[in-house]
Amino acid sequence: MHAVASSLFVLAGLLTGASAMADQAKPTPSAKELLAASKPAEWRTPDPQNLLYMQLPQGRVVIELAPDFTPLHAANIRTLVRGHYFDGLAIVRVQDNFVTQWDDPNGDDGGDKAKMHSLGTAKTTLPPEFTRAINPQQPWTPLPDGDVYAPQVGFSGGLPVARDPAAGKEWPVQCYGMVGVARDVAPDSGNGSALYAVIGQAPRRLDHNLAVAGRVLVGMPYLSALPRGTGPMGFYAKAAQRTPILSVKLAADLPPAQQEKVQVLRTDSPTFAALIETARHGHNPFYPEPVGKLGICDIHAPVRVNGKPATP
Amino acid sequence: MHAVASSLFVLAGLLTGASAMADQAKPTPSAKELLAASKPAEWRTPDPQNLLYMQLPQGRVVIELAPDFTPLHAANIRTLVRGHYFDGLAIVRVQDNFVTQWDDPNGDDGGDKAKMHSLGTAKTTLPPEFTRAINPQQPWTPLPDGDVYAPQVGFSGGLPVARDPAAGKEWPVQCYGMVGVARDVAPDSGNGSALYAVIGQAPRRLDHNLAVAGRVLVGMPYLSALPRGTGPMGFYAKAAQRTPILSVKLAADLPPAQQEKVQVLRTDSPTFAALIETARHGHNPFYPEPVGKLGICDIHAPVRVNGKPATP
Repeated sequence: MHAVASSLFVLAGLLTGASAMADQAKPTPSAKELLAASKPAEWRTPDPQNLLYMQLPQGRVVIELAPDFTPLHAANIRTLVRGHYFDGLAIVRVQDNFVTQWDDPNGDDGGDKAKMHSLGTAKTTLPPEFTRAINPQQPWTPLPDGDVYAPQVGFSGGLPVARDPAAGKEWPVQCYGMVGVARDVAPDSGNGSALYAVIGQAPRRLDHNLAVAGRVLVGMPYLSALPRGTGPMGFYAKAAQRTPILSVKLAADLPPAQQEKVQVLRTDSPTFAALIETARHGHNPFYPEPVGKLGICDIHAPVRVNGKPATP
Repeated sequence: MHAVASSLFVLAGLLTGASAMADQAKPTPSAKELLAASKPAEWRTPDPQNLLYMQLPQGRVVIELAPDFTPLHAANIRTLVRGHYFDGLAIVRVQDNFVTQWDDPNGDDGGDKAKMHSLGTAKTTLPPEFTRAINPQQPWTPLPDGDVYAPQVGFSGGLPVARDPAAGKEWPVQCYGMVGVARDVAPDSGNGSALYAVIGQAPRRLDHNLAVAGRVLVGMPYLSALPRGTGPMGFYAKAAQRTPILSVKLAADLPPAQQEKVQVLRTDSPTFAALIETARHGHNPFYPEPVGKLGICDIHAPVRVNGKPATP
């Protein structure tokens, strides 16, 4: 019976990298220990102008916009939020191992076009912003183990990023928890009024083909654990199956007492570099040898809310 | 308003690779078209001795065991199933972007050890079966775009597989939907009585460190859309939050009328090779150019139930 109970612990240990086992050949600090020893200056507090609070019946999702990569999209989304565009819209699609998508259900086939929310003063088209020029002034934390899809990968400004040095371009990678901008065939047809979050294996085919609006910092389970849509491509077959979006607000528009104290570990910090090395070379009695490698979507910038880890 | 509605279609189009657009420079068959044109001989019907039907309150999950890779685990799991070991157990853990795990909750801290299900005649330990020797006689469908973690990747016997030719070994990759065997620190401590399914980005650090019992063929949403556990490492904090396992049965033990007509596309078939090439080089008006690459966890062997795709 021992194996049943203990296996729970051990499989968990794999995830955290934690180990207090006495038989460890070369003890290495665990992720938990590294975070506990991090310095206050290694954590950044996102600009409240970039934090979206999306209130669902189940709880609040906090999204950080990515204006360093997609400034025009960030500005348009702020305009949509302040025009109350998203309030009363819905999550209309949850496709297993792919995306959770929210927008105006009256834009769907069978919807009532007359009831669609107005974009107000927001733009209906935007320049694509799929990639940006590599800027040597921006901090860059490379991952050394390569990537199937891009010449280089690493972290910049808190996000997983792929680079093509020959083209002088870089773009955020569509990893789990990233928020993207749905669009029409025309590259300039996205405007931020329809967004999705990645809830499965990173769909790398979307990289540099859809703009990345930002990243979910808190509340991914409210998006990832929703019932999958049974219609084509994960759309809900019935309107009643949709999850209503009660409101989307900018943290900056709320009084400080209503803002969550969210912090994100800087990806150019020594502690984040140590987390990468622990994932690659940390010793754990469970393994005969360290993993030795790390993929771009296999680590992310840790998040704290009120000083505590945001993810269990 | 156009972009909102159309973007739904286009993002969907990315997924299926489908396109009937008139402006396509070089039309390539979509995945749907390739599957529709597949020949009956390209599909295999899994041996009912290898098919587990796991009945949850929400529906049935169908798992195919992988005796070509882990024969001793497959045999032990069959013994456990036929001893009704799993009937009345529970899903005890759902950790976001990682695994859904089921086993005997009375093995947990606070559980009643006296109420634990007996393993019966099943073995309590097993040789690890983490890897197997590369056998040139086995069909091998390579992916040509490399891998971060392993020297070679491809498909064998329906599963995503990584290879180390220098060591002469190969092992199934822990992609989304793969079913693994939880274990204790000792490599031989897994026995199949505690299993997990991968529900997020492939946790490649588990590769060749945990035995792969098989793959979920049907019903992944019943495992992936469960509420995340709020206890440490995704364990449910309260017993009432667990999902009960009503029963686990072998298809072979049911009368034919109660067996689902499940078929899996052979990964050594021309159609599967064509699906790989469509994913890598298929043209779609949405992209300026084809993706050009394909990762080992970015495609899987398609499944049909009663002749229809098992996944929406």
